Amino acid sequence: MSEPTLLVLAADPPPRLGRLTGRVRVTYADEDTLAAQLPLSDALLVWNFTSDAVRLAWPGEGPRPRWVHTPSAGVDRLLCPELAESDTVVTNARGIFEVPIAEYVAALVLAMAKDLPGTLELQRQRRWRHREGLGVAGTRALVVGAGPIGRATARMLKAIGVRTALVGRTARTGIHGVRDLDPLMARADWVVCAAPLTDDTRGMFDARRFDLMQPSAHFINVGRGPLVVESDLAAALDKRWIAGAALDVFEHEPLAPDSPLWDVPGLIVSPHMSGDTVGWRDRLGEQFVEMYELWAAGKPLPNVVDKKRGYVPMHDDSPD
Amino acid sequence: MSEPTLLVLAADPPPRLGRLTGRVRVTYADEDTLAAQLPLSDALLVWNFTSDAVRLAWPGEGPRPRWVHTPSAGVDRLLCPELAESDTVVTNARGIFEVPIAEYVAALVLAMAKDLPGTLELQRQRRWRHREGLGVAGTRALVVGAGPIGRATARMLKAIGVRTALVGRTARTGIHGVRDLDPLMARADWVVCAAPLTDDTRGMFDARRFDLMQPSAHFINVGRGPLVVESDLAAALDKRWIAGAALDVFEHEPLAPDSPLWDVPGLIVSPHMSGDTVGWRDRLGEQFVEMYELWAAGKPLPNVVDKKRGYVPMHDDSPD
Repeated sequence: MSEPTLLVLAADPPPRLGRLTGRVRVTYADEDTLAAQLPLSDALLVWNFTSDAVRLAWPGEGPRPRWVHTPSAGVDRLLCPELAESDTVVTNARGIFEVPIAEYVAALVLAMAKDLPGTLELQRQRRWRHREGLGVAGTRALVVGAGPIGRATARMLKAIGVRTALVGRTARTGIHGVRDLDPLMARADWVVCAAPLTDDTRGMFDARRFDLMQPSAHFINVGRGPLVVESDLAAALDKRWIAGAALDVFEHEPLAPDSPLWDVPGLIVSPHMSGDTVGWRDRLGEQFVEMYELWAAGKPLPNVVDKKRGYVPMHDDSPD
Repeated sequence: MSEPTLLVLAADPPPRLGRLTGRVRVTYADEDTLAAQLPLSDALLVWNFTSDAVRLAWPGEGPRPRWVHTPSAGVDRLLCPELAESDTVVTNARGIFEVPIAEYVAALVLAMAKDLPGTLELQRQRRWRHREGLGVAGTRALVVGAGPIGRATARMLKAIGVRTALVGRTARTGIHGVRDLDPLMARADWVVCAAPLTDDTRGMFDARRFDLMQPSAHFINVGRGPLVVESDLAAALDKRWIAGAALDVFEHEPLAPDSPLWDVPGLIVSPHMSGDTVGWRDRLGEQFVEMYELWAAGKPLPNVVDKKRGYVPMHDDSPD
């Protein structure tokens, strides 16, 4: 067998890829040259995982990579009907982002409970104004999304004393199905969205659902922007249907300087960074190299995406 | 036995005190009238616990309250040599502040790890700038102070994945003695001060100790202001000896509007609020009423301060 061709969507070589030198022919593509190179490649590493180029350039028929890897948790930017229907295997970066995102959500919950944004604003004004924080222990969280990120987040929130329920697509042991979402939202102090973006989940957090929440409750999105109807969230905060919110992901990223979201009262805006901790690119490169070695040896790959569902199923995920 | 006289240092009646109606004669004092009323009182509730008045007004000899209760964790504002040497029992509010302060410290650790202050400042400027957070799991914390607040804080930090060491006055099972403080500070990512203010601990965090810390490390004080030499901390941040700090307590409170601490780079200033969560005054009032009932019945009181040491000893605290 001749050296396989690995196509990398990236301007610069990802870290750790040098370890494969001599065992694979690596070529690089940008968004413009991707379509021409896809038919010539055996595997594709979508290093520039925020790009829509793969979805746009994926060949309908004929030669194409047999394996596509994205160094991200979500695969929503990648999947198109042609790729979903093909026999090309798609894998993701399960294992890298779980704990960082869980920590980030805990940071937001605790910061909102203790009004850290208010403290920092008062500090800027050199004003000493004592306030009472919220006790976090014994409050209720609802984590929406029962994949590894949602589960790690639920574990972290439980660890800091929050009574946490988890909602997934289907009910399983310890996990509520989507049918329980509305009643659980109505009694949660913290609603955390960590769901994948699919046709089923797009826009699931809308005015009707924010209206279900308690006026004292907070909403956090670390999933994907389009899970939330942003204008509905802004209105819910404006009308004080809910007490606060934090968005790390947005319908359009980067958020435009003139977006009204920047200064919605009670909304924390962060630049899609919840999963990205020092060394993350190295870890993603390492993970890819390990997966490449399995693939080149003809061994089964981990983290295989169910392309119909749009995410990597968990071991306890029931079939459709 | 005639009705005992309970003197309350407060402008307004504390919550829950009405439950004692008919069983105790309650009188109120302010800072000016305290000295005259102390000799006439059987018990003293220092509801206004931020006042220095008790220390200043405590009678040297002669009649005085047999019991003094402060609804705070620290007793540093209260104790004077005459009170320490008398047979008056002093109690504190152990049990109320532990979990709130532990949560507050976790909020600060996570917020600093994820650069939430930077995120909020960028949001104000409507700037999208992706940054990498620190992974908190596996980092090292040192909690100084092995009382219930330090222990609750250590438990909370361990719960979020931080390897946490605890330093107390003397070494005990699972707790380092003060001798280990310097080497432990040198390798900690997070140094948290939750120690009582005593003659031994005043000024313990000074230039020499900040210089021991790693340039990537952070310092947090939720104990008492004078444990830290504030100008040394400001200099350590200024010279980048350490990466960041958060002070919830200060040498002089409230912090003056012209204090240079308000805008030391990398320093979070909060208004002594770490232990104060919604409902805390009610809980403090309830705790006092329960303790009053024990005292009036001649039963032993919990939370009795060792007036020589300046705090309530733990069950595993060795004698001098």
